[in-house]
Amino acid sequence: MAANTFGELFRVTTFGESHGPAMGCVIDGCPAGLELSVNDIEAELARRRPGAAYGSRDESDKPEILSGVFEGKTLGSPIAIIVRNENQNSKDYEELKDIYRPGHADFTWDAKFGFRDYRGGGRSSGRETLCRVAAGAVAKKLLSLKGIKINACADINGSIEEARSDNDSIGGIVSCQISGLSAGLGEPVFDKLDARLAAAILSIGACKGIEFGAGFAASQMKGSENNDLPANEGGFQYATNNAGGILGGISTGQDIVFKAAFKPTPSIGKKQKAYDKDGNIREIEIKGRHDVCIVPRVVVVVEAMAALVLADSLLLSYSSKK
Amino acid sequence: MAANTFGELFRVTTFGESHGPAMGCVIDGCPAGLELSVNDIEAELARRRPGAAYGSRDESDKPEILSGVFEGKTLGSPIAIIVRNENQNSKDYEELKDIYRPGHADFTWDAKFGFRDYRGGGRSSGRETLCRVAAGAVAKKLLSLKGIKINACADINGSIEEARSDNDSIGGIVSCQISGLSAGLGEPVFDKLDARLAAAILSIGACKGIEFGAGFAASQMKGSENNDLPANEGGFQYATNNAGGILGGISTGQDIVFKAAFKPTPSIGKKQKAYDKDGNIREIEIKGRHDVCIVPRVVVVVEAMAALVLADSLLLSYSSKK
Amino acid sequence: MAANTFGELFRVTTFGESHGPAMGCVIDGCPAGLELSVNDIEAELARRRPGAAYGSRDESDKPEILSGVFEGKTLGSPIAIIVRNENQNSKDYEELKDIYRPGHADFTWDAKFGFRDYRGGGRSSGRETLCRVAAGAVAKKLLSLKGIKINACADINGSIEEARSDNDSIGGIVSCQISGLSAGLGEPVFDKLDARLAAAILSIGACKGIEFGAGFAASQMKGSENNDLPANEGGFQYATNNAGGILGGISTGQDIVFKAAFKPTPSIGKKQKAYDKDGNIREIEIKGRHDVCIVPRVVVVVEAMAALVLADSLLLSYSSKK
Amino acid sequence: MAANTFGELFRVTTFGESHGPAMGCVIDGCPAGLELSVNDIEAELARRRPGAAYGSRDESDKPEILSGVFEGKTLGSPIAIIVRNENQNSKDYEELKDIYRPGHADFTWDAKFGFRDYRGGGRSSGRETLCRVAAGAVAKKLLSLKGIKINACADINGSIEEARSDNDSIGGIVSCQISGLSAGLGEPVFDKLDARLAAAILSIGACKGIEFGAGFAASQMKGSENNDLPANEGGFQYATNNAGGILGGISTGQDIVFKAAFKPTPSIGKKQKAYDKDGNIREIEIKGRHDVCIVPRVVVVVEAMAALVLADSLLLSYSSKK
Repeated sequence: MAANTFGELFRVTTFGESHGPAMGCVIDGCPAGLELSVNDIEAELARRRPGAAYGSRDESDKPEILSGVFEGKTLGSPIAIIVRNENQNSKDYEELKDIYRPGHADFTWDAKFGFRDYRGGGRSSGRETLCRVAAGAVAKKLLSLKGIKINACADINGSIEEARSDNDSIGGIVSCQISGLSAGLGEPVFDKLDARLAAAILSIGACKGIEFGAGFAASQMKGSENNDLPANEGGFQYATNNAGGILGGISTGQDIVFKAAFKPTPSIGKKQKAYDKDGNIREIEIKGRHDVCIVPRVVVVVEAMAALVLADSLLLSYSSKK
Repeated sequence: MAANTFGELFRVTTFGESHGPAMGCVIDGCPAGLELSVNDIEAELARRRPGAAYGSRDESDKPEILSGVFEGKTLGSPIAIIVRNENQNSKDYEELKDIYRPGHADFTWDAKFGFRDYRGGGRSSGRETLCRVAAGAVAKKLLSLKGIKINACADINGSIEEARSDNDSIGGIVSCQISGLSAGLGEPVFDKLDARLAAAILSIGACKGIEFGAGFAASQMKGSENNDLPANEGGFQYATNNAGGILGGISTGQDIVFKAAFKPTPSIGKKQKAYDKDGNIREIEIKGRHDVCIVPRVVVVVEAMAALVLADSLLLSYSSKK
Repeated sequence: MAANTFGELFRVTTFGESHGPAMGCVIDGCPAGLELSVNDIEAELARRRPGAAYGSRDESDKPEILSGVFEGKTLGSPIAIIVRNENQNSKDYEELKDIYRPGHADFTWDAKFGFRDYRGGGRSSGRETLCRVAAGAVAKKLLSLKGIKINACADINGSIEEARSDNDSIGGIVSCQISGLSAGLGEPVFDKLDARLAAAILSIGACKGIEFGAGFAASQMKGSENNDLPANEGGFQYATNNAGGILGGISTGQDIVFKAAFKPTPSIGKKQKAYDKDGNIREIEIKGRHDVCIVPRVVVVVEAMAALVLADSLLLSYSSKK
Repeated sequence: MAANTFGELFRVTTFGESHGPAMGCVIDGCPAGLELSVNDIEAELARRRPGAAYGSRDESDKPEILSGVFEGKTLGSPIAIIVRNENQNSKDYEELKDIYRPGHADFTWDAKFGFRDYRGGGRSSGRETLCRVAAGAVAKKLLSLKGIKINACADINGSIEEARSDNDSIGGIVSCQISGLSAGLGEPVFDKLDARLAAAILSIGACKGIEFGAGFAASQMKGSENNDLPANEGGFQYATNNAGGILGGISTGQDIVFKAAFKPTPSIGKKQKAYDKDGNIREIEIKGRHDVCIVPRVVVVVEAMAALVLADSLLLSYSSKK
């Protein structure tokens, strides 16, 4: 059950329920001597915060660093960061207390734990990703020392305004590119770089799939089409990147590229049928502040999770050779 | 680097290079008292063994259980299984010693470790999956006690004979269905069941992508289309399974369904350009025994990795509630 | 470096520097449905708080639960607890900034991390044990459901008043007894119950040794003297407990008994020679609030660490048998 | 239960029952490029093998390296080593099948797993330490590159011949010294170097206690006596080593010194009372080949476990600083 920790050497533990006192994370294993301030974290959190346009709960999300930083630099000891929950409206959820919202984790959480915080999804809320972004900000600082950059962008299917007026929601695709890598990162055979990235991205609530490089299309190619071949004499440059920057679970030095699919937000204003605790079907309309489309906000979460994987891989790579 | 172990409680460590003395695995954490014989393992290994049709190396793959089983039952101590490597033809690889085969892990392995066993891909060979299948056989026995069944099948793009005569290779899709599950398996937030399955499947050499339930298609749906709704009063049955049997990283009790994309075998008979160790481009023709299409053999590997995830989730679930 | 986490299933991560904003812990893997309130934690923290008699810094140590508890019960999600640092007097340490206090971790911390929070020992301060006590309080609640009780007591060498008037310090022995256990807890071969307890107790700053049952004396006995023999027909009762309640790393059902040695506090008022950063010898007098003897305060820390080990062993034991 | 693995980066998994087909270990995380041959392992195993003098089972203990080594150097992939069990005499144990031998793990193993291999202690046999010695041989090779040396010696209480003629057994103390260390190894707060060493040594079957530096005696000293003070200007040399080479869980650069107490072998020829499976008292005489005193053979096991801890600490230390 101890599954709220991610990573081996650069290791992040997150905590917090959507309507509890605070969200937070503890980053253990960040090397000492890295410059870090609360501004680094705020800047990334701001990218996750919704515009009024998206219709979701707006919070200032002020992070506080509780430990691990002294005189502007990391100490090598755990970095704890918390953000207080504010602007909660638990009443919106009171009437859903005994109902399992379709597409949400309400039923499964009850099945597993026999008990849940029903307010705003509790621990299964998208608000949990705030902690990932805070930790990702630290990982990005570490990676930037090595020239590694991570950029993601969203491709949304349709206009958000249309879905909103329909009381419906839409999903989309997040594409991510990691550049500035040297060859040799990744830990085969089970902790291949793509395997770790897949786990990282699929651990984001609404993600339903991931593909690297040519991805699913590669399954329809011939070997002679899919193999990335040398581009020019005297170096390791390739004409294509069907592999997505990873071979045998180890970085090739080319950019790592992957795409992740996110389902539409399950919370919609439309009337829906849903089971209650006793297995009876009830009709519900979900109120509260919900994103019509979470994909734009997920972009920075995807980057954060990729950063956690890369930071960990970087530290692990130090002991590959004698 | 210690990445040859998979799982938390039901934990498997694999070892072996393609042309070294033996392949093997150690399964730690399997509960005591489970009936297990070498036949259970052989039966699964046989499903991985190529038909002459596929053109790859044929070995008898006789497993030996070295520990952990006494009087036909597991002891609760580690179960070590080895299979000797035979029928190796290392000479085929001698001339590729200083060449990085396109689409293989030759270059990346050198970049990481500064040194590699070039014979048949060494540790990065597909032969490594033999160990996963052996371990998966034990996991399946454990799961069968709870009525959990795992079935995968292959969907290959084109005829294998055509690719063979072209000295080329083809990829394909493996679909997997896990049935007989109760609701409540999976460890959020980072060890969600889909995140663990994604890591498990992407850790198989040639895998380039995975999707659960509606998968990438879900990203193009509206929330009102994608949500799985109640089917009948008085139970938890759903009309659809777009979620693929997992919500919030926890099993819903519906079948878990996912699809994984496998690239075409990078080893092809056709002439290709490739880098050598010094970055010069050389022309190569890959000899040796290679699969034209590995997808049919991957089916049992996918099942095995899924079984390892489920067996681990099952044991982890025992401590969810007071 | 990611070494601020303890346990496998009942897993605790601690954070905080002595003079930073806060100390805290995150408990992951505590089963859902356990009754828990801030009072449970406060009661244990009070046992660790020094009396004015001991001369150390007095803080109210008010814990706040940030997550993982809802309506008075644990959720199965991570339980984060913080205690703000107050009543700090960092100035006491300003003049020791470039000096390595004898018997402290000042030099080694610098050697490892190249940088440290010199105020009150930073992360290596005894104040870090506060987090262990908070986490131990939760573990004890879980254990009490099974009737498991942990009691430690101190045996101090000499009177504390004499050492105080000499500007010196003294050490002592903590004895611990764990009762109400069933047989069968512990995970051989490397995570034997005594091995885990030894790691747990030796991880407390000033601990220099541990022994179980007859301990060092057993090394001077004959087998016929040391073996614990049956006491009465029809049960598993023993006449002696030289084994200390553990055989082969697994609990026997007898009480677990161990003793741990704690060195005298290295901070003393007496003049001492010490190295500075450049390796020059300087004469120092350590000011600030220091315990003349930490042993009475360590008692509850020993209990807490033992409770963490036992809670983890309890959860791990659920998957021993089919 | 998955407790047959030791270490984080330099990670060893052992397997094998005393009278099963083979004992073995898998070493994962050993850096690539280290020279290693089967002779390195044999040399250490020979130190563990009993002389005829000790009266225990004599086996040739021929190790075979199954993977991870190519052309005389480590590959960075898992190193599997096995030793076949020979010269077994299972009949000696047939009559003890339903009896719990005093001082052995027979009862506790049954309590935990509900089932055990009763032949020679099965997995709880001292023969399991063979695997530790094999793995330790690899760790020592790695450490020797850094000039780190580990030497242990035995201090036995009484003459072995006297105990043998009495059909009794004796215990003893093993002292260990680790030299050539730089300052800065160890991972506070929970994986302090002494905590890890304590777990490593207490995981050896018959160990009942451990102390570092002044150890238990330190608990009776004053701070002014126990603190290790500077010896000479211009360096970090100390007049004493009461700390045993570790402060705050991190190596000081002085030699690490510890002592471990081992109980007398519980298997003795003398008549003893013992419980059978039903809790009835029976009188037994233990036959078979048993060591009168295992302490001389434990010396190399202690060294091996210390080597595993140090090798792991070394690799972990690479990511301490930015």
